[in-house]
Amino acid sequence: MVSCSKERLQEKIQTFSTFGDTGNKGITRLCFTEPNLKAREEFTSRCKALGMEVKTDDLGNIYATLKGTEDLPAISMGSHLDSVIKGGNYDGVLGVLTGLEVAETIVKENIKTRHPITVIVWTNEEGSRFPPAMMSSGILAGKFDEETMMASKDKDGVTFKEALEASGYKGDRANRLNDKEYKAFFELHIEQGPVLETEKMDVAVVEGVVGMVNYEIKTRGQANHAGTIPMPMRKDALYAMTWIIEYLHDELSKLDSKLVYTTGEFSGAPNVHTVIPDHVRITLDSRHQDPEVIKQVVEVIKRIPEVVRECPVAYREQWARDTVDFKADMVDIVEAGAKAYNYSYKRMYSGAGHDAQYIADMIPSTMIFVPSISGFSHCEDETTPFDQCWKGCNVLLQSVLTLDQQ
Amino acid sequence: MVSCSKERLQEKIQTFSTFGDTGNKGITRLCFTEPNLKAREEFTSRCKALGMEVKTDDLGNIYATLKGTEDLPAISMGSHLDSVIKGGNYDGVLGVLTGLEVAETIVKENIKTRHPITVIVWTNEEGSRFPPAMMSSGILAGKFDEETMMASKDKDGVTFKEALEASGYKGDRANRLNDKEYKAFFELHIEQGPVLETEKMDVAVVEGVVGMVNYEIKTRGQANHAGTIPMPMRKDALYAMTWIIEYLHDELSKLDSKLVYTTGEFSGAPNVHTVIPDHVRITLDSRHQDPEVIKQVVEVIKRIPEVVRECPVAYREQWARDTVDFKADMVDIVEAGAKAYNYSYKRMYSGAGHDAQYIADMIPSTMIFVPSISGFSHCEDETTPFDQCWKGCNVLLQSVLTLDQQ
Repeated sequence: MVSCSKERLQEKIQTFSTFGDTGNKGITRLCFTEPNLKAREEFTSRCKALGMEVKTDDLGNIYATLKGTEDLPAISMGSHLDSVIKGGNYDGVLGVLTGLEVAETIVKENIKTRHPITVIVWTNEEGSRFPPAMMSSGILAGKFDEETMMASKDKDGVTFKEALEASGYKGDRANRLNDKEYKAFFELHIEQGPVLETEKMDVAVVEGVVGMVNYEIKTRGQANHAGTIPMPMRKDALYAMTWIIEYLHDELSKLDSKLVYTTGEFSGAPNVHTVIPDHVRITLDSRHQDPEVIKQVVEVIKRIPEVVRECPVAYREQWARDTVDFKADMVDIVEAGAKAYNYSYKRMYSGAGHDAQYIADMIPSTMIFVPSISGFSHCEDETTPFDQCWKGCNVLLQSVLTLDQQ
Repeated sequence: MVSCSKERLQEKIQTFSTFGDTGNKGITRLCFTEPNLKAREEFTSRCKALGMEVKTDDLGNIYATLKGTEDLPAISMGSHLDSVIKGGNYDGVLGVLTGLEVAETIVKENIKTRHPITVIVWTNEEGSRFPPAMMSSGILAGKFDEETMMASKDKDGVTFKEALEASGYKGDRANRLNDKEYKAFFELHIEQGPVLETEKMDVAVVEGVVGMVNYEIKTRGQANHAGTIPMPMRKDALYAMTWIIEYLHDELSKLDSKLVYTTGEFSGAPNVHTVIPDHVRITLDSRHQDPEVIKQVVEVIKRIPEVVRECPVAYREQWARDTVDFKADMVDIVEAGAKAYNYSYKRMYSGAGHDAQYIADMIPSTMIFVPSISGFSHCEDETTPFDQCWKGCNVLLQSVLTLDQQ
């Protein structure tokens, strides 16, 4: 059975790790910055060298296509080349490079596919320079208002539109991914969690992306002097919030064991060592594949007392996202690919968001995960061994070739 | 029995409330800013109009003195004219204006005192422009290194030394308060807490200033993606810290009921809604008049487990301050003053720091508190009714006159 080249894939990963190298194992490759443009240039020139036709759409998404033998829509795959600040060498770029390696294998092994094969680079997935994340796939899928996105600014006040136009990658709107010219989309990605490594699995067959809900919760106390107010007369917004965090963990831990919940943001005022906290704010991010469990989370939030430890409590939903279920036949193709190579695998939902979840609104899409050592991601220590990258790449190759026969 | 004039005192408070008026009931009168200089000028000219001799020392502290009939050291009283940002019309300034009203009463009532009577304005008590608080009394008492204090900078980079020299209030070092020329010091101040109001007391006879200890406590978790890490695999620094805050409240509430403790500062990183908190830091400020109770607080801190909810814990003492006990005969004089007017009073320790606690190292000192409505201080809502200010002023007058006979 045909396989990709581990050596070629390793060379690709190592070469691309030089674009935005932080000198500390990681990279910083924000959207349309010089390191990002260098990575795009390297990708484009390698695709052209393989005989692929390269075009871009009006959002700077790159589509590199190998011709097929029949007049059919393209089978596509890919991910993104931008990173977070001090990110790693696998998040996003691995989905692009495994796509490139699949194309290279098809060319080098002289495999004739019925469908065109397209490798896609999505623009600004991380949203680290121009919020929000998954911007260009979100625009394609109609999730975001295009004008608002064009006006998104980086910390220096440069808009996404300005950076896009200056990049040289702004192409024709007619080139956007659509359901006439594209048959399906595969995205290989690192897991960004510890499950595959812990369970000693080679790959994950990704069934979908979990839904989430994000709440803001606030307590209002009474700022006052730390030395002069007897304890029973205090309204301490932080002490009220610790009750709420304990309550949330106690109650949410009773729900389904796959539920995850995170109080990631926390701030307050006046934040002075001699003053009783006046008000405190946290966010609660909660994710599960079953919308019923998310409803249960909201019920738990709604059962927070109106006044906790003398402090009034307020909460509101900031946003929510429905679970995306990938099409069963796409998921089955990936599973068959893993089985074909005799790789261990696990079916799972993605806890993180990915471009594939928006693309799934337009054409059949699914994902393949490879293990993240220690679950690290969005940091310089982010690692997936080359052998594991290669196994994922083989599953991607097999999935594309299987679908090509359908 | 002689009394001060309520009308005159009210006029003083109202006039001084115009210096740095925020337009929202409060004032901002940072050390050596224009509003502070205007208040100093008004104080100085009123003292001179009463026939007082006015001099300043090399820290800009103002000493305004009425001559006595005998060659004796002066009985002094006063407080400060600087404020916090958006502070109120009573903290500090009331101690200066009641001192001025006592002097005016002595002049207008033609009372002949054996001792000179001095009203003092301490420079930079709040430390809001130039940290730390109680700077000039602390320098006099040898608590602070003078050179370090001179180099203290405001947010624009101006040093205390530069502002002092530009103020026109820098005088002779020989004019500093000392135990040869000064017999005693009284400081009238607002309580800055709710106890007097709650217990319907006119004044507090202040026995001392409570000791305190300030600890920093840190938890170290592992930042990771909010969506991809199963709950049992997390190291959440905030969830660990909520355990510690609960533990501290549970254990400290078992100690003496007069103990106060405050987790006023709290911060952490990366503080992103989609990331598990990596590390969190709080401060614990704890105060009690009995050093044994403060030792018990430290024991409670030392019993925090080394690892809480998978997160290593670190703590260290940031600073500590011993309890200051005012001299019993000084405290008794104030109590006798309250009794003389038939005012209700309570003996108590100050939970907040004041210049008097440093001056007490040099000469016999004590304090008088008047009620703070709702316990508010360091805010624009800070209020003490004029009638209560006047009662405190009478106790101050009586205390000075009583001591003058000793």
